[in-house]
Amino acid sequence: MRPRQSGISRRSLFSSLALVAAGVAPLASRSVKAQGADPLPAWNAGAAKQSILDFVAAVTREGSPQYVPPPERIATFDNDGTLWVEQPMYTQLAFALDRVKALAPRHPEWREKEPFKAVLDGDLEALAKGGERAMVELVVATHAGMSTAEFMAIVSQWLKTARHPRFERPYTELVYQPMLELMSYLRDNGFKTFIVSGGGIEFMRPWTEPVYGVPPEYVVGSSIKTRFELGSGEPQLLRLADIDFVDDGAGKPVGINSHIGRRPIAAFGNSDGDLEMLQWTTLAGNRRRLGMIVHHTDAEREYAYDRLSHVGRLSAALDAAPANGWIVIDMKTDWKHIFAAGDAPGVGGRAIK
Amino acid sequence: MRPRQSGISRRSLFSSLALVAAGVAPLASRSVKAQGADPLPAWNAGAAKQSILDFVAAVTREGSPQYVPPPERIATFDNDGTLWVEQPMYTQLAFALDRVKALAPRHPEWREKEPFKAVLDGDLEALAKGGERAMVELVVATHAGMSTAEFMAIVSQWLKTARHPRFERPYTELVYQPMLELMSYLRDNGFKTFIVSGGGIEFMRPWTEPVYGVPPEYVVGSSIKTRFELGSGEPQLLRLADIDFVDDGAGKPVGINSHIGRRPIAAFGNSDGDLEMLQWTTLAGNRRRLGMIVHHTDAEREYAYDRLSHVGRLSAALDAAPANGWIVIDMKTDWKHIFAAGDAPGVGGRAIK
Repeated sequence: MRPRQSGISRRSLFSSLALVAAGVAPLASRSVKAQGADPLPAWNAGAAKQSILDFVAAVTREGSPQYVPPPERIATFDNDGTLWVEQPMYTQLAFALDRVKALAPRHPEWREKEPFKAVLDGDLEALAKGGERAMVELVVATHAGMSTAEFMAIVSQWLKTARHPRFERPYTELVYQPMLELMSYLRDNGFKTFIVSGGGIEFMRPWTEPVYGVPPEYVVGSSIKTRFELGSGEPQLLRLADIDFVDDGAGKPVGINSHIGRRPIAAFGNSDGDLEMLQWTTLAGNRRRLGMIVHHTDAEREYAYDRLSHVGRLSAALDAAPANGWIVIDMKTDWKHIFAAGDAPGVGGRAIK
Repeated sequence: MRPRQSGISRRSLFSSLALVAAGVAPLASRSVKAQGADPLPAWNAGAAKQSILDFVAAVTREGSPQYVPPPERIATFDNDGTLWVEQPMYTQLAFALDRVKALAPRHPEWREKEPFKAVLDGDLEALAKGGERAMVELVVATHAGMSTAEFMAIVSQWLKTARHPRFERPYTELVYQPMLELMSYLRDNGFKTFIVSGGGIEFMRPWTEPVYGVPPEYVVGSSIKTRFELGSGEPQLLRLADIDFVDDGAGKPVGINSHIGRRPIAAFGNSDGDLEMLQWTTLAGNRRRLGMIVHHTDAEREYAYDRLSHVGRLSAALDAAPANGWIVIDMKTDWKHIFAAGDAPGVGGRAIK
């Protein structure tokens, strides 16, 4: 385990964190609330939009056989590729690479040691060759060895300065306006909206409330172990070099059960990592259920990818959609707007094959 | 691993579960809500009651330096001995013993095999000699090997028929009226009330919402591992013979961080198993915090025990209370009433030495 972050006092971390929290624009609150107004203005009319409106009407109509009481109106959302951009690499990986570069002066041995050498050389192909083991080493080196409060401050600080390589904007602005509207619309109708992501739970929690309106306790994700330490000062939780739980694939129903304790009635994903969450949500009981898949089909405004992409591969879940009644959202035709902070059409758009 | 529960169809389990859910009296909603009325009528006037009122007034007064925004008003409650009776044994242990007896006809080998023999012989001393290993064997034999839905139904069915040996009432009626009022009062003031218990998370979730007003996603507890299985029918989560997490002692801050993701500003416990939760909650930051300990001092109406009890031992946390400003609730003098379903004074009261 690496030594704790030195030279950064907890007080200054808390202070900078407070600034970050105050500085993040509350995009989620921009939803249209006027009575009679279209609750989903960034969605074009079509089967996808209509399936949402029909589902919400059915489960909220009192006396209807499809009525679901509010406490049981649980909706789960994948994050990467479902709520915000995941190309050309998961944002959390971009964070890890930046952290390696920031920490490199304290680790001269990394110059010759993989996977750090690949990162410092900017050689993503060499990094990819390291496979899952390289990823775990990266996570341990960049996500462990500090307190939970310190990690939260590091993430918040990074998000303030990091920019997406193509769109040249903060990642928290590259969230999908149609999905923000969908989450607000569900909450306005008594739903609890949870994030259920393969990403790190503590990588997401510092910003999901201001950006999505999702509080920390409604975030489910992958985690490393922590240990309580009282010491002589304030008690803290130390982040250990030990993976605790991977909230992806068949792990998603497990994470949902552990954190939520109820089966969702609606689930939204975009990749094969969401297959089991969609199955768990929709293939049970006699309740009305909604399963939706965001299909990235818009190389101009965002990206176009599915079966052949290394990031957010969508193949088995796409094949399983018709038989299970899952609605596939065609980003290009179903979404009038894509990003909450506005679209920049045609800027370097490309399809990923 | 034992075979899955046979002879009980999932459909019939769901049906009986629905009946149970409908039959549990919603005790939590009985709180007094009339304006100007005492929000804590089951509390006698005194330092404990006043400390609650003062704390809530301070953190909810807008513009005050001690003001805490609603999303950060997190309060955590231990369950056994803090919200409901834990003597003469944890309710979950009573459940496990009853399950061993119910399952014994299918396990003739248990007649000669510890710890099952001790259970079937009613020899609790022999059982205690088996220590933690015996407890783990009991948990695995009675809590694993079925789906989460089946386990939930078994727990609900058991709670419908089981009676406390002294009070001869359902366990869900032996919840503390003052604590129900406290939880309601906090929620009425914008708090989120979580249960953080050493008990099994899936043993609590079937009944915490009707009994305490605490939904499943606000319950943190100990857990065993589960595995997603699609099979040919409905997908299910199978409960495995493998302990996942023990939410007790130093595990409580870890569980709080994992499930809630924010540090509480108020915590309520009754034993040394709550020591670290109290430390984590109160010994940090410059916010106003509240830590309280239920001290069982009433052998007439409930039980009297602390340092020498095997169940709910209270020693280190009691010693640490004065220096940390934790308020010790004297059950005998601070609580006008004890049980939500009414008290039966003098029935078999005894002190545990």
